Amino acid sequence: MGLSHVDEKGNARMVDVSQKQHTERTAIATGRVRMKESTIKLIMEGNMPKGDVLSTARIAGIMGAKQTDKLIPMCHNLPLDGIKVTLEVGDQMDVVDIRAVAKCVWKTGVEMEALTAVSVAALTLYDMCKAVDKDMVIEDIMLVKKTGGKTGEYTRV
Amino acid sequence: MGLSHVDEKGNARMVDVSQKQHTERTAIATGRVRMKESTIKLIMEGNMPKGDVLSTARIAGIMGAKQTDKLIPMCHNLPLDGIKVTLEVGDQMDVVDIRAVAKCVWKTGVEMEALTAVSVAALTLYDMCKAVDKDMVIEDIMLVKKTGGKTGEYTRV
Amino acid sequence: MGLSHVDEKGNARMVDVSQKQHTERTAIATGRVRMKESTIKLIMEGNMPKGDVLSTARIAGIMGAKQTDKLIPMCHNLPLDGIKVTLEVGDQMDVVDIRAVAKCVWKTGVEMEALTAVSVAALTLYDMCKAVDKDMVIEDIMLVKKTGGKTGEYTRV
Amino acid sequence: MGLSHVDEKGNARMVDVSQKQHTERTAIATGRVRMKESTIKLIMEGNMPKGDVLSTARIAGIMGAKQTDKLIPMCHNLPLDGIKVTLEVGDQMDVVDIRAVAKCVWKTGVEMEALTAVSVAALTLYDMCKAVDKDMVIEDIMLVKKTGGKTGEYTRV
Amino acid sequence: MGLSHVDEKGNARMVDVSQKQHTERTAIATGRVRMKESTIKLIMEGNMPKGDVLSTARIAGIMGAKQTDKLIPMCHNLPLDGIKVTLEVGDQMDVVDIRAVAKCVWKTGVEMEALTAVSVAALTLYDMCKAVDKDMVIEDIMLVKKTGGKTGEYTRV
Amino acid sequence: MGLSHVDEKGNARMVDVSQKQHTERTAIATGRVRMKESTIKLIMEGNMPKGDVLSTARIAGIMGAKQTDKLIPMCHNLPLDGIKVTLEVGDQMDVVDIRAVAKCVWKTGVEMEALTAVSVAALTLYDMCKAVDKDMVIEDIMLVKKTGGKTGEYTRV
Repeated sequence: MGLSHVDEKGNARMVDVSQKQHTERTAIATGRVRMKESTIKLIMEGNMPKGDVLSTARIAGIMGAKQTDKLIPMCHNLPLDGIKVTLEVGDQMDVVDIRAVAKCVWKTGVEMEALTAVSVAALTLYDMCKAVDKDMVIEDIMLVKKTGGKTGEYTRV
Repeated sequence: MGLSHVDEKGNARMVDVSQKQHTERTAIATGRVRMKESTIKLIMEGNMPKGDVLSTARIAGIMGAKQTDKLIPMCHNLPLDGIKVTLEVGDQMDVVDIRAVAKCVWKTGVEMEALTAVSVAALTLYDMCKAVDKDMVIEDIMLVKKTGGKTGEYTRV
Repeated sequence: MGLSHVDEKGNARMVDVSQKQHTERTAIATGRVRMKESTIKLIMEGNMPKGDVLSTARIAGIMGAKQTDKLIPMCHNLPLDGIKVTLEVGDQMDVVDIRAVAKCVWKTGVEMEALTAVSVAALTLYDMCKAVDKDMVIEDIMLVKKTGGKTGEYTRV
Repeated sequence: MGLSHVDEKGNARMVDVSQKQHTERTAIATGRVRMKESTIKLIMEGNMPKGDVLSTARIAGIMGAKQTDKLIPMCHNLPLDGIKVTLEVGDQMDVVDIRAVAKCVWKTGVEMEALTAVSVAALTLYDMCKAVDKDMVIEDIMLVKKTGGKTGEYTRV
Repeated sequence: MGLSHVDEKGNARMVDVSQKQHTERTAIATGRVRMKESTIKLIMEGNMPKGDVLSTARIAGIMGAKQTDKLIPMCHNLPLDGIKVTLEVGDQMDVVDIRAVAKCVWKTGVEMEALTAVSVAALTLYDMCKAVDKDMVIEDIMLVKKTGGKTGEYTRV
Repeated sequence: MGLSHVDEKGNARMVDVSQKQHTERTAIATGRVRMKESTIKLIMEGNMPKGDVLSTARIAGIMGAKQTDKLIPMCHNLPLDGIKVTLEVGDQMDVVDIRAVAKCVWKTGVEMEALTAVSVAALTLYDMCKAVDKDMVIEDIMLVKKTGGKTGEYTRV
């Protein structure tokens, strides 16, 4: 039929890691949400209509990290050993910076968990503030560092 | 105890929309993943180790949209009427552009569904390609248009 | 790039139903799990090592129906009005017959909910009995009837 | 076989509500977690090792409410219009009182959503504080009021 | 901005357990649902309108235990080795007693899994019986014993 | 009350595997969806109204495998090491054959993960094609091979 060949080629798969070693893994991801200074002031004063923005985003990021393998089709489910999400207002009062650190001791890395935590925290910031500012932009979600695994350490330059 | 006041202030809540009217809603969000030209070539040739990148990301974005209210704490669950995710390689061969259109007839808007679809599609692109390129950056996820609801139409300028 | 065209063609999407009317919908699906007579006897005597087989399968089928849109990528999430799953041992003592009836008043049908309920109930039967019988086969999951919607009634002949 | 009769009797089912009217529904549930005064002081001073207890519990309660139909087998999935969870330290400094108000306009009530919100908030309080106090007890989760629906108003006496 | 400090303080986090040892863990939790004698009779006779109450609650408790880390924000996801939920009518015919035993071999304990199983079973009892009795109360959910881990055995006195 | 005995008997439980060894496990399951030749042609030409059928079904199968323990009540949650789903049109142009291979190194097997992957892929095929063909039948989902674990290798004869 020829179909199986086409199939083989496009064949999305969750790569077999059964032969890989358990090693300690860390991944750090960052991103930011750009917004008006007036929006940031409302956040800091605790006057957003949906309530406390930063703690809701932090918790959403942590819970989002635990959903990573349900969201990303070819991602392995793995037992996450720790996840920390921090949010900080930038010096120019025009962004909220987001940073997530994920850890596990497993056969595959936790890059996607860290990136998902940042993404969900960013989306939650948007949701909590969108009644007063729809122009916000989620910017520059990236991996800044990973350790562990066969490919070893990666640091973004 | 004074606590209840502190509580009241920080009080995250899912806003009561029981009195709002059902209106037809649309939201369009965009974003992009910046990557090396060599990465884009591997995507287009169907040679990524995890398989077909674009169709996996598209499907992940659509399924992610249906998880929006589970990921974003104060987001209402609502019956989504339609969601479409498109991915296109930019003319400079340095980005994959992502666009999501969400629709519903309901009391609240679908901005978060469209933004979540773009975010999950972007994360999936990252996951599918990270074996060959860890420097990719998810850029500029934003709402470009919404229609319907009390606040009416919004178009990003 | 030519890519967008390829994209457009393969473009999986959750079809826009925002203009469709709410009508009352029913769907009936059936299936069966073929197994040894000795397996069926253990079920009926309540002697399976994992416990009560039929009530666990029935509940799993009902709960599975509520996960339909999370499992089936292009399926709409909709408020299910009712779901009933019945399991019955066949006269020949060689199968357990499964039947699910799903109902809703909505813009799209509940065929997938009924079929998913049958499938999850069948998988649960397999799981509850596999310690004593790995040769079981899940057979002939099909839609037997649907009512409501623009395409009207369907009855399998 | 006689089995179908046994089956019919025990037959768990998600009751068919397709003929019921949409009415405005409210449900209020309460509960509390009893704990040592020293535990409550650590909560109020923000010195718990897992971080901010009350806002985490509040958010967990709200998100838990949206999972109600996935947790409670025979519960209908429905679009929740609003959910509010409040936590307050009791005057005797020996309990944290939890209260949830759920709203929707739908065919079935939101009692389970309110009760689930209280339960998940209570479990989260336990989790956030268990490193310093394992003797906490989750007490008296109950419905205090509901309005709407065919059976009308209920107020606990 | 001072904000990062506030942030640091309230900072909910999923504690890093990457350095902890795998040990065998057990946790036992209990709770009960108080209800009218007439309600208990309907349960025992199998005459509740939603069907078999006890087996539905038992299965819901087991499935709920597997959702623990999705419900409790700072709870680690872990592979559960076993979960058993028992329900028993009290001698006075005024309560259903619930007990859950959870087991795993992992870096963190399973107290929350046992407590979640009891809570979800209790909520399910409420849901299955609320058509005939809205006055039921979920009482005294608590940890009665845990073994394993650095802090060793705990037995409630 | 005698109830506890009845209870004990019907007692569904997630069997305690805390004492079992980690061994490498594989499971292979198959199934197929029977459909009209005209339906298969539409799939192969990429002309189905919901878009690309085979890649959507493949991805759904993989993602479904990761939901196995949430769908099947007594199934253990475990970290899946790999899952591959293949779909192929049969020589007679009357069926799409589905095959899933699941792998893990764990205390329990991955039979249910492989069977769930096949089932969800089959349901997705149905959903993607049902607009043009409601007579499709999901046939013969079965385990064809498993390796690893105390009971050792199983090959369907």
